[in-house]
Amino acid sequence: MRTISQTELKHGSMEQLHRLCETLREEIFRTVSACGGHLSSNLGTVELTVALHRVFDFPRDKLIFDVGHQCYTHKLLSERAPLFFTLRQEGGISGFPKREESPYDAYGTGHAGTSVSAALGIAKARDLRGEDYAVIALIGDGSFQNGLVYEALNSLKLLRTNVLIVLNDNGMSISPTEGGTQEILDALKESAAGESVRLLEQFGLTYRGIVNGNDLEALIPALEEAKEELRSGSVLLHVVTRKGQGYSFAENAPTETHGLSPAPKRGKEYSAVLGEELMRLAERDERIVAVTAAMTDSLGLRPFFEKFPARSFDVGICEEHASVLAASMAAAGMKPYYAIYSTFLQRAFDEVIHDVCGQDLPVTFCIDRAGITGHDGETHQGIFDLSYLSLIPNLTIAAPKDLGEFRSMLRMSADYAHPLAIRYPRYGEEGVIAPVEMGKFELLHSTISDIILCAVGERCLKIAQFAIKEAEKRGIQVSLANARFVKPLDLTFLTGRPENYIVTLEDNVLAGGFGDAVRRALVGSGKTIFSFGLRDAFIPHGEPQRLSVRYGLDPEEIVKLLEALHARG
Amino acid sequence: MRTISQTELKHGSMEQLHRLCETLREEIFRTVSACGGHLSSNLGTVELTVALHRVFDFPRDKLIFDVGHQCYTHKLLSERAPLFFTLRQEGGISGFPKREESPYDAYGTGHAGTSVSAALGIAKARDLRGEDYAVIALIGDGSFQNGLVYEALNSLKLLRTNVLIVLNDNGMSISPTEGGTQEILDALKESAAGESVRLLEQFGLTYRGIVNGNDLEALIPALEEAKEELRSGSVLLHVVTRKGQGYSFAENAPTETHGLSPAPKRGKEYSAVLGEELMRLAERDERIVAVTAAMTDSLGLRPFFEKFPARSFDVGICEEHASVLAASMAAAGMKPYYAIYSTFLQRAFDEVIHDVCGQDLPVTFCIDRAGITGHDGETHQGIFDLSYLSLIPNLTIAAPKDLGEFRSMLRMSADYAHPLAIRYPRYGEEGVIAPVEMGKFELLHSTISDIILCAVGERCLKIAQFAIKEAEKRGIQVSLANARFVKPLDLTFLTGRPENYIVTLEDNVLAGGFGDAVRRALVGSGKTIFSFGLRDAFIPHGEPQRLSVRYGLDPEEIVKLLEALHARG
Repeated sequence: MRTISQTELKHGSMEQLHRLCETLREEIFRTVSACGGHLSSNLGTVELTVALHRVFDFPRDKLIFDVGHQCYTHKLLSERAPLFFTLRQEGGISGFPKREESPYDAYGTGHAGTSVSAALGIAKARDLRGEDYAVIALIGDGSFQNGLVYEALNSLKLLRTNVLIVLNDNGMSISPTEGGTQEILDALKESAAGESVRLLEQFGLTYRGIVNGNDLEALIPALEEAKEELRSGSVLLHVVTRKGQGYSFAENAPTETHGLSPAPKRGKEYSAVLGEELMRLAERDERIVAVTAAMTDSLGLRPFFEKFPARSFDVGICEEHASVLAASMAAAGMKPYYAIYSTFLQRAFDEVIHDVCGQDLPVTFCIDRAGITGHDGETHQGIFDLSYLSLIPNLTIAAPKDLGEFRSMLRMSADYAHPLAIRYPRYGEEGVIAPVEMGKFELLHSTISDIILCAVGERCLKIAQFAIKEAEKRGIQVSLANARFVKPLDLTFLTGRPENYIVTLEDNVLAGGFGDAVRRALVGSGKTIFSFGLRDAFIPHGEPQRLSVRYGLDPEEIVKLLEALHARG
Repeated sequence: MRTISQTELKHGSMEQLHRLCETLREEIFRTVSACGGHLSSNLGTVELTVALHRVFDFPRDKLIFDVGHQCYTHKLLSERAPLFFTLRQEGGISGFPKREESPYDAYGTGHAGTSVSAALGIAKARDLRGEDYAVIALIGDGSFQNGLVYEALNSLKLLRTNVLIVLNDNGMSISPTEGGTQEILDALKESAAGESVRLLEQFGLTYRGIVNGNDLEALIPALEEAKEELRSGSVLLHVVTRKGQGYSFAENAPTETHGLSPAPKRGKEYSAVLGEELMRLAERDERIVAVTAAMTDSLGLRPFFEKFPARSFDVGICEEHASVLAASMAAAGMKPYYAIYSTFLQRAFDEVIHDVCGQDLPVTFCIDRAGITGHDGETHQGIFDLSYLSLIPNLTIAAPKDLGEFRSMLRMSADYAHPLAIRYPRYGEEGVIAPVEMGKFELLHSTISDIILCAVGERCLKIAQFAIKEAEKRGIQVSLANARFVKPLDLTFLTGRPENYIVTLEDNVLAGGFGDAVRRALVGSGKTIFSFGLRDAFIPHGEPQRLSVRYGLDPEEIVKLLEALHARG
């Protein structure tokens, strides 16, 4: 797509802007169809973003996205249109705002709830530096439930600075938004002069709304007024948009079209197995409940939620609260399963320590999208969990080799009375359902060799198997173990093996991961441990397999090491 | 103190209850004077806790404390009075609620903001199990600012269960509470029938207040009414107490008497040096700002706050928001220093990754109370930070050997354009202020030996020095390095040393810490690395030095290893 000039945006006729919105919508649809990405949230905010660009002066003024699921129009309007076809591809345009990509991206995001805090920080810095520009946080109603937003609102008066919060209310996060906050927003919609407004005013915000966020004629003057008011105080502009606006399929199925995958599905999803097994377990055990933070569908829990509505809890984008809720339900006799993406569990890190493991409560964390997730980039890679979980006492960490073993682990978890984390990637292959003994590795391939590969999880086992085959072609025999428990380690296995060289594989950063644990456990044993994993870096968007090779899990490098060790004898 | 019977509590006359409150207050004052602990918050809530025990039936009903700074009266009333003199002593009564200590402690705490979530989880579990008891969250106004509380309130209607939230409003957390939330509470105090009530009602709470929380005659009927109302819905009872009530010194100096230390001060505090140096740096560099989450005094920042009020930000108990605020101010050209206790930084883990390090922003984390802190127990030990920080790309981690080196590191930080964490214990000794080169270890003691000790931070260096002296007595020479950077490691130093045995020391859990990093860095070097650090456990309250020995930093064990290595040759 051609570059849209700021002059065109600023001085074009309304007629031209309408045509621009159509063009943008088409471009987003075409690109997302090819590259994957977030469709309905971006379609819903085309007019809103065009209006923001019309009224404000970017990059001088700063636009901060919450999460960033709505930033495509902004990218198309800020000199990146010609490159937009590279969206989410390695080396191409990121699907999220990114400071290093463009000065128009004032603040990087990917996780929810940061925008109001970030807007306040930037505005305060502006004041301290004696600069003059507007700072705008664009936040959806789903993110608005996150506790971090309230912490920021609580600071508004303290910080004595002015920001504009544009609340994009489409009644959905990824799933429809529920909860008290949404009721407050709904109350605002019903009576803009009502009591809810007072709440915002007590926080130090002037409330402006409701504006139809898909109507340029309403939006532009509303934003102009807000801009004017921003000189004397902070403003919340309540905009109502329709998720998926402009494409009937996306409008009617906003949950399904929230995120689209670029490539054909690669096998069955672990999430589907989670749903199936959890239902099976819940039928027999009334203590079982499922907890999620606004991700019911992507985590495979929809069937469970439909079958056991009373035992299903989607608490919105509130990862911390979900964790405490799980811990406390466990403290009162239930058996909670908290399903969450690896990257988002970082938000509940303290609660995993303080509430769940500190009290040794039987909460099972089902950690999806572990390892490199790919096209969403830095903020969505699940590459830290083995490390940040391994340091926590009382926690058992498991990683299945395939869907069958995942089933077995879930079944095993039913009787386990302590904290348990099971981490797995998105896609997997079927496999045998055989009993898994807690804390025991599995020997997958045994040969007469001085080298054994110990790999964590399905992806690394595949890499290991490939490397072993390659090595065999060169006359090198190597044994292989499925290191299905990262904590506790199977010390009996590790110390009892005859091989002198242990090579570990994990799709996690090396610092504090599986390899480190094995080396620590085997100090003084005389064995030498080499580790493959991801190097110390934030991994950008791209094709997962390629990123994996590029960032440290290169089968060729593994084969080279095997050759060198073999030569050493 | 003698055990108070539940009969006495339930059926005693008001006169008897008043006398009981006096006795409790004396007991708390006496015990805290001897053992240290939280004084003013506990003195303020004697009547409230007695009234709760009068009206509710514990442990059948569940009382959940937020943070737990107010639990002493509860402990005295729940069969633990005879042991109360052991408060915060090794093997004695914990200063915080703890499930394993008593069935009266329904839920363990120590960090802020968890109580409403936990009450909801327990209440929901009760409903699902068809049980019948009351669940009460007791939360202070300081904690009420924490985002987690709002995430829980947002869930109230979704969860369809009934809890009683007793809001203990004394206008203080550790410091006086400021911010929008407090203004809302103040508005409630001014007009209990006002608009703020509607907010709570929109969340699904019936508002009851204001009750004088130091007046038993008002409290008991108010709690009885709330108990009745709890049958049909959730209730918020707004109680106003006076922090330190009953002791004029504590009433007049609630900040100073919030927490008392049991022992005489052991040297100067690192926090004092932080305050001094930061003022020095801020005079020269206008970009420098200080951020804290309700801990201005304990972190040594009061003088800075007084001198540079416009560049000082205490955002209340909002660790996550403080982190994003620091990141965003850095993104807009400022140079923020975020001071926080090690254990509380866990709350901002995701923001350290996602906002600060993910964007490679020049935020300096000043991490106080690192290592074993002692008498506050499990929830307050700073024993995970080296691990949870080491896994984060772009972050430099430093630990000074004394106050002089801390000054040098802070001075060095002024020109450092990336994320930096400096972690240190509470007390330290003076030392030379010599330039510190980023990423370089310091050789403190060099001798002809096959062994070198590499120790992180002041405490471990002292342990190492002690062990070396003991070893010397036995004719064993050992070199010593000050491993003042945990990340990046000083690879030039490590690989260039002649010693074959490296012994690492860190007051952090071993998993993912310094020792693991050294071992990983030296794979294939032929060197053998032994590590001393804290073992995989939550460390209870007690005397820090003794706990340190008991949990893995035992100088005798180190000497034994040195002897064994020496014998090996």
